[in-house]
Amino acid sequence: MSGVLPLLVASVLTASAATQAAAPAASQAARRPVTVADVLAASGPADWRPLDAQHTLYVELPAGRVIIELNSEFAPHHVANIEALTREGYYDGLAIVRSQDNYVVQWADPDGKRPIRNAQHTLAAEFERSSRGVPFTPLTDPDTYAPEAGFAEGFPAARDTKIGRAWLVHCYGMVGAGRDTDVDSGGGTELYVVTGQAPRHLDRNVTLVGRVIQGMELLSVLPRGTGALGFYEKPEQRTPIKSIRIAADVPAAQRTELELLRTDTPTFTAYVEARRNRREEWFKVPAGHVDVCNVPLVARPKAK
Amino acid sequence: MSGVLPLLVASVLTASAATQAAAPAASQAARRPVTVADVLAASGPADWRPLDAQHTLYVELPAGRVIIELNSEFAPHHVANIEALTREGYYDGLAIVRSQDNYVVQWADPDGKRPIRNAQHTLAAEFERSSRGVPFTPLTDPDTYAPEAGFAEGFPAARDTKIGRAWLVHCYGMVGAGRDTDVDSGGGTELYVVTGQAPRHLDRNVTLVGRVIQGMELLSVLPRGTGALGFYEKPEQRTPIKSIRIAADVPAAQRTELELLRTDTPTFTAYVEARRNRREEWFKVPAGHVDVCNVPLVARPKAK
Repeated sequence: MSGVLPLLVASVLTASAATQAAAPAASQAARRPVTVADVLAASGPADWRPLDAQHTLYVELPAGRVIIELNSEFAPHHVANIEALTREGYYDGLAIVRSQDNYVVQWADPDGKRPIRNAQHTLAAEFERSSRGVPFTPLTDPDTYAPEAGFAEGFPAARDTKIGRAWLVHCYGMVGAGRDTDVDSGGGTELYVVTGQAPRHLDRNVTLVGRVIQGMELLSVLPRGTGALGFYEKPEQRTPIKSIRIAADVPAAQRTELELLRTDTPTFTAYVEARRNRREEWFKVPAGHVDVCNVPLVARPKAK
Repeated sequence: MSGVLPLLVASVLTASAATQAAAPAASQAARRPVTVADVLAASGPADWRPLDAQHTLYVELPAGRVIIELNSEFAPHHVANIEALTREGYYDGLAIVRSQDNYVVQWADPDGKRPIRNAQHTLAAEFERSSRGVPFTPLTDPDTYAPEAGFAEGFPAARDTKIGRAWLVHCYGMVGAGRDTDVDSGGGTELYVVTGQAPRHLDRNVTLVGRVIQGMELLSVLPRGTGALGFYEKPEQRTPIKSIRIAADVPAAQRTELELLRTDTPTFTAYVEARRNRREEWFKVPAGHVDVCNVPLVARPKAK
């Protein structure tokens, strides 16, 4: 296409692009990997981790499956409750009731009548935790919001070692438990997903429970609600949640087998550096820094 | 709606919300404004600036109008060329050819056959400019990417006073001129709009020409293309650009009259502080800082 200026190498690397990346030829393999594609192509099995089917949600929408990796290290009680809500079928037949541009989508019981049998309605907040014993891969880059930003076992996170606290951060695709004004009014009955510029001012104000690892494009394109805060004004504008299932409860043949790039390896360090200073020919001025929310955490089909 | 946890006050304030904000009662007006809504409700006419119809584009899509404020201070030659392209009808009937999740949408001539009569195909890059004489409202907050981030006459920007340079930055809604590998291969025939997490690594690598001030939700919801880089694989998946017009060339009755919050006033300083440390009851831990791309630059219908 003549005249098309596709910002080619500026693309966010997708899982499919990663798997399609040709293996480097012998002479190339000897070079130090410099681009994101190079780093991923040179990665080995130990650079990837399996997805834990016990803590993975399949959100089935009319348009397809959204996959969420839950984080039971940072939000153990919320995650256990969300799993209990899932297993009792609480979410099945609920709806996405809100889509606010450059912010979040959120699902809930629009009528507020859905009974809860065994799970909890609300839980004590899990906004942050002790940073002791939390494996943490810090970024060297300055962060606007936190003393230190980085990655905790595959999730974007931050910590303040002075006060000994760590927390997950609100990047694109992160999933949180909506709450009312009371800090302990959440619990997982309503979940939101970040669909816009990282709303980092929500960090430590609401419990993050996981992240979307596949299917974000099914959520991010939902029409924006025209009511206050992006709520849909008419019931028919909502998107139904057909069901939510825990991956481990789904027959093997119906599972989506993925693996995730580890965030605590030399390969990941090289990957971050390749994002920080883009070496593709298109780039003229390497940024020199990278934001924690500008490091896509790669998921790809599991190697057979 | 019982049980709905709408993250109420965490919302990005929209233009309509701003105009709907009730004027504070006399006793309230005496208080120092603390929330975003308070600050905007207390703003006066001098806190707003008119939109320059000579440098405003109306992008007419089947779903409605997207309005772009061009920036002729940072990219004078690109803006002049985009206006020339607009006036010769170059864009009319082109299409949005690309929508990449959490990144950009982009329009172009899909067939590469559209003639250019009077405008230029390509121009020298305008990635940055001298910081001398650039009115700049710096943020006091650390920025991951630049020595100093802030606002230059209503646009998110950054500067490095050591080298005397200033540039616009890639926040949500910013509009740029796509280019090929050569730095001088852009010119405005293809424009992209940021629809995801601020890709600040593009700063100083591509010419930013303006920002969307209304209608982002018409672009951000476009289905993501399934080809590499989010290109649509089938022509029928593209969204047609019905026309692009300069506001000044449109009959007065068909114009959208807007005004924009100034970024160089005490009101704006208070507005930024209200974003930096959210004082609404819902928030428990004020963030203490704010990212340049997390300060929505408000547009509202022009006061009669």
